[in-house]
Amino acid sequence: MGSTWGRYFKVTTFGESHGPALGAVVDGLPAGVRVDREQIQDCLDRRKPGTSDLVSPRKEPDRVEILSGVREDLSLGTPVALLIRNQNQRSQDYDDIGRLFRPGHADYTYHQKYGLAPLPGGGRASGRETAARVAAGALAQALLAPLGVRVRACTVALGGIEAGRVDYDFAETSPLRFADPDLAAEAEALVREVRDQGDSLGGVVLVSALGVPPGLGAPVFDKLEAVLGQAMLSIGAVKGIEFGAGFALAKMRGSEANDSLTPEGFASNNAGGTLGGISTGQEIVMRLAVKPTSSIALPQSTVDLDGQEAQIRIQGRHDPCLCARVCPVAEAMAWLVLAEAHLEQLAHERRDLC
Amino acid sequence: MGSTWGRYFKVTTFGESHGPALGAVVDGLPAGVRVDREQIQDCLDRRKPGTSDLVSPRKEPDRVEILSGVREDLSLGTPVALLIRNQNQRSQDYDDIGRLFRPGHADYTYHQKYGLAPLPGGGRASGRETAARVAAGALAQALLAPLGVRVRACTVALGGIEAGRVDYDFAETSPLRFADPDLAAEAEALVREVRDQGDSLGGVVLVSALGVPPGLGAPVFDKLEAVLGQAMLSIGAVKGIEFGAGFALAKMRGSEANDSLTPEGFASNNAGGTLGGISTGQEIVMRLAVKPTSSIALPQSTVDLDGQEAQIRIQGRHDPCLCARVCPVAEAMAWLVLAEAHLEQLAHERRDLC
Amino acid sequence: MGSTWGRYFKVTTFGESHGPALGAVVDGLPAGVRVDREQIQDCLDRRKPGTSDLVSPRKEPDRVEILSGVREDLSLGTPVALLIRNQNQRSQDYDDIGRLFRPGHADYTYHQKYGLAPLPGGGRASGRETAARVAAGALAQALLAPLGVRVRACTVALGGIEAGRVDYDFAETSPLRFADPDLAAEAEALVREVRDQGDSLGGVVLVSALGVPPGLGAPVFDKLEAVLGQAMLSIGAVKGIEFGAGFALAKMRGSEANDSLTPEGFASNNAGGTLGGISTGQEIVMRLAVKPTSSIALPQSTVDLDGQEAQIRIQGRHDPCLCARVCPVAEAMAWLVLAEAHLEQLAHERRDLC
Amino acid sequence: MGSTWGRYFKVTTFGESHGPALGAVVDGLPAGVRVDREQIQDCLDRRKPGTSDLVSPRKEPDRVEILSGVREDLSLGTPVALLIRNQNQRSQDYDDIGRLFRPGHADYTYHQKYGLAPLPGGGRASGRETAARVAAGALAQALLAPLGVRVRACTVALGGIEAGRVDYDFAETSPLRFADPDLAAEAEALVREVRDQGDSLGGVVLVSALGVPPGLGAPVFDKLEAVLGQAMLSIGAVKGIEFGAGFALAKMRGSEANDSLTPEGFASNNAGGTLGGISTGQEIVMRLAVKPTSSIALPQSTVDLDGQEAQIRIQGRHDPCLCARVCPVAEAMAWLVLAEAHLEQLAHERRDLC
Repeated sequence: MGSTWGRYFKVTTFGESHGPALGAVVDGLPAGVRVDREQIQDCLDRRKPGTSDLVSPRKEPDRVEILSGVREDLSLGTPVALLIRNQNQRSQDYDDIGRLFRPGHADYTYHQKYGLAPLPGGGRASGRETAARVAAGALAQALLAPLGVRVRACTVALGGIEAGRVDYDFAETSPLRFADPDLAAEAEALVREVRDQGDSLGGVVLVSALGVPPGLGAPVFDKLEAVLGQAMLSIGAVKGIEFGAGFALAKMRGSEANDSLTPEGFASNNAGGTLGGISTGQEIVMRLAVKPTSSIALPQSTVDLDGQEAQIRIQGRHDPCLCARVCPVAEAMAWLVLAEAHLEQLAHERRDLC
Repeated sequence: MGSTWGRYFKVTTFGESHGPALGAVVDGLPAGVRVDREQIQDCLDRRKPGTSDLVSPRKEPDRVEILSGVREDLSLGTPVALLIRNQNQRSQDYDDIGRLFRPGHADYTYHQKYGLAPLPGGGRASGRETAARVAAGALAQALLAPLGVRVRACTVALGGIEAGRVDYDFAETSPLRFADPDLAAEAEALVREVRDQGDSLGGVVLVSALGVPPGLGAPVFDKLEAVLGQAMLSIGAVKGIEFGAGFALAKMRGSEANDSLTPEGFASNNAGGTLGGISTGQEIVMRLAVKPTSSIALPQSTVDLDGQEAQIRIQGRHDPCLCARVCPVAEAMAWLVLAEAHLEQLAHERRDLC
Repeated sequence: MGSTWGRYFKVTTFGESHGPALGAVVDGLPAGVRVDREQIQDCLDRRKPGTSDLVSPRKEPDRVEILSGVREDLSLGTPVALLIRNQNQRSQDYDDIGRLFRPGHADYTYHQKYGLAPLPGGGRASGRETAARVAAGALAQALLAPLGVRVRACTVALGGIEAGRVDYDFAETSPLRFADPDLAAEAEALVREVRDQGDSLGGVVLVSALGVPPGLGAPVFDKLEAVLGQAMLSIGAVKGIEFGAGFALAKMRGSEANDSLTPEGFASNNAGGTLGGISTGQEIVMRLAVKPTSSIALPQSTVDLDGQEAQIRIQGRHDPCLCARVCPVAEAMAWLVLAEAHLEQLAHERRDLC
Repeated sequence: MGSTWGRYFKVTTFGESHGPALGAVVDGLPAGVRVDREQIQDCLDRRKPGTSDLVSPRKEPDRVEILSGVREDLSLGTPVALLIRNQNQRSQDYDDIGRLFRPGHADYTYHQKYGLAPLPGGGRASGRETAARVAAGALAQALLAPLGVRVRACTVALGGIEAGRVDYDFAETSPLRFADPDLAAEAEALVREVRDQGDSLGGVVLVSALGVPPGLGAPVFDKLEAVLGQAMLSIGAVKGIEFGAGFALAKMRGSEANDSLTPEGFASNNAGGTLGGISTGQEIVMRLAVKPTSSIALPQSTVDLDGQEAQIRIQGRHDPCLCARVCPVAEAMAWLVLAEAHLEQLAHERRDLC
């Protein structure tokens, strides 16, 4: 279970890393939205590996095919199914690990849940699954971008190097999507060094949404942060999230933390763009803790299917740091959440019937 | 919308802070579970204010009534409705603020979303809403505790004072639920000082679940962290969450972050008890960033319903720090998530039909 | 499970016939809708028994209390909880049947599903459960009636007597809600005769919705007939439903069955107001097969909890025919379906962004 | 919306009749179920047209491809995606109707809902959509058939000819799936006659489920009849459904309609296999009213997109009667409902914890 997301903008994804294909079905995109195969492809291209020596050298062309729901570049209002065939699966990289649980991976828990031996590439738990999310997110973007919404993500920390400033335009040109032009070279050098050691690095991704109208989100369980939280924490490598000042709020006093209102708008944005789980109209800001890539070349201790001690060295073509790859996925998830909240609000806008 | 949570263990809550009542309807509790009104009441009593000079002096007796779904202390399998009447509503505390947006509160966004003037006590956005969650969580606990699951929460940081060790038993005796016996007095003194200044403090709450069987959770969107994340971030004051080593993972290398497997189990728990979104059987550990109480007595700048500049001083009986109050709510949300995952797994356990 | 209905206009009900209370929580009613306790009470009063010698003489005052979501007769946009206390429960009528499965009732299947002995009055399976639906339906009506939608139901067949014409105004005055003024006396006489024999009668209820805008409903699984079908078949006594010409279509040819379009509108309404599961703007018409009341005074063969043969004579104050009681419940379910479809359409209306 | 069905056994379908492909994604099939591409193909082959001169001569090979969720003929527990490419689309048959609303079709309502001109073949409203349901149903069958459940459907009435007896084995050999060997020739002759007149016929389909364990289904909104009702009424041509004695119950007395219990089981099955919405363990029996095929060659009155009067003659290769085509779709929907109810019951089975 758990492969369907949303109620108003409903996304269902499928696909294992070494199966025939990945894909997504999106139900809830209204009719009349311009849907451009190239726009979806662009989003996928931002996500794909092999773009520099700092990310995985795997070749995943990830060509998307629109199977339904679109005619003459306009949505029909019916489900849009998107298909991405798998290619370039080097199963042999996984030959030696079919009986070993890779540390940091889902092999052990999938075995517990499904009774399965480890699948090549992690099966459904592979990061490849996120290609389908990115394709679906492109449809949400097609719905919302014409309304003035803008979503961006970049790397703001990596192996302890913290960006002093955030330059989204620069990040787009950086192979690590690193936000700070002054520290990008240092970050790249660190990634190369750690990669060459057979190790990997964690980091922090910043996600921002601009132009979100006030009033999106819902009280109680479906607060906008809550839904964004689920969306972001459902990305494999993300192990933490904070909104606005986040964990720093734990050290603040209320008089410092509260964002004052002025006739010109809010004086600050410690809350990160929501109050009571509903958007204020300010920038929505969140930071994601990204764990180091679990697949490393260094030898690690583990057990096999029989519970016997074993050593494992993971071959293959893995990203030394996942932040750059997480960025487009986090953007896609933000688009999905905002599309959902946008449609929910349309359904439930205040009446003046009396 | 957004007042229903879960699909297998479905919880619907209702109630405004100054309306007639709060409550929850739980659909999905199997028949035959021992449901004890006193056990639900005990959970509510752990949440209620007025228990020391360090929390709100409001009196909320919060007596729960079971309206349906239980007969002779056993669940019937049908919805369990729980009712809590509101009492001790001092609306006069809010008289002067009906036209002003309180900083840090949902007044502004509810106005944007629903077209409403600020409601006494925040209406649906009030922390009182969480009483219904606690009552519902008690039912999830009734389902899971007999299976050996145990959930606990405590305060591990407060106004910059960080617990050096975690003693859950001590925390139960601490008015702040502070985890470290050595620093508790210091923390209490700080709370009193800040309270007397008319200000408030933030902190960090630690939530732990023990005895969770491996295999709970689901791939992709409904990863256990993702669902826990939504659950916790839906608590009003929570602005961040991290699992296991959390944001510290951003500074680690993979060789350090990965939890090795041994024949005796995992050698560490940086992942916080899940892999690939599915429980490993280890302790599930998460930390919540709790913002300082928004209601403070100090004067604050804001605007009124017409957008005119104004000063506001919030009267009333507010908690100087919310951590102690968040603990039982976070526990309740954890119980709900685990009950949901438990029932999901029962439905979808591996078949051996072939 | 199964006590929550809808996604946009979400209704959760609770309550056993001899428990403390029944109720409904409605999440999804937009803010600003005029909600009048008296209007809800009027709907409940139309449903309640004891109004003539042709229906159950039970006294169920069924006073509704609004617990949340409404302030000064306007909806807040948050869940509206409605509470109806049970009264006048004569459990002694059920004393002798606690170990016997009543034919036609859910005692046997609840025992199979939940492991329960038969509950007084059927517990959750009692027709009393429908009071909560009627209360919830009144909120849907409050949303839609100002838009010009009108829903009505009446009895069009009873014990073999078929109405020759449908006079809704007359039906409102008839204790059986019988639609044909010319045959109503005959129908009443039949009901008295059968009641005095200790037996019961089935019938057919007609449900009509006028003023439904075209375009409501959805393709595939959520066709308007499909959702109406579920809604109506979820009423205990309803064992069949047909739309428009219904089963008579099975004997027609396409040239006869198809409703021609003309510049003035459709020339006929064999389809019953939908095409492809979406409303045409015509009257939506459906007929419900209502089984005879299962509770009869005549002796019946059954078994006890141990599977031993037994005779049962059901005491109590039961309706000799359920049609009149089904009418307001069917109306309520139609209102719920239409509110759901209305909100769905608002969320997904065609965009013209390109 | 409305292209996802179910919560435990969740099916999402997509595809327009003249788009690139149809398909279904099934999330909720437990791991370890034997899934055989040939079994799915067999179900599709039972549905496909072109098998005799009594059904549409269209050629739709409908080859199914499994894209995910299966490995070495065993389900993985993750979503199973099934793809069916469209072929043999003779769009030219629809050239002349792109501006005319076909009577009995969804052209008019899709125009109202989505603002679309009529699509070739009806787009999403085409009966071709049901191929995806049949493929999904085959997975539900793979789950339940090993448990002893059996679902069958046949034609029991057609153009006024009513089957006197039901011989499922014979029906499998009949091009009309007509149930009565003695009347099948007569029925076939009638179909040929009406087809040659350019007209079409309605009928009645009987659906039966054997071996359903007692206790499946749920009270209130998700009664088994209610869910089956939605499932069946979501099939395009179905305009009515009745369970057990159905509409005949409207003429019965309670003493006749109630099914007595005996130590050997129920003495009759007027209820059609459920009580209170939960399965009794008896045969589940339902009858579906199938309208005559809307596409007929005879000239019909309609209007064009501008509301101007027009005549339409529908070309193409249409079924003169849909009953034979509805049978496998109705079986598929029954399998889906039963799989859902089966998984729900596993999740919520009675506990004996006390």
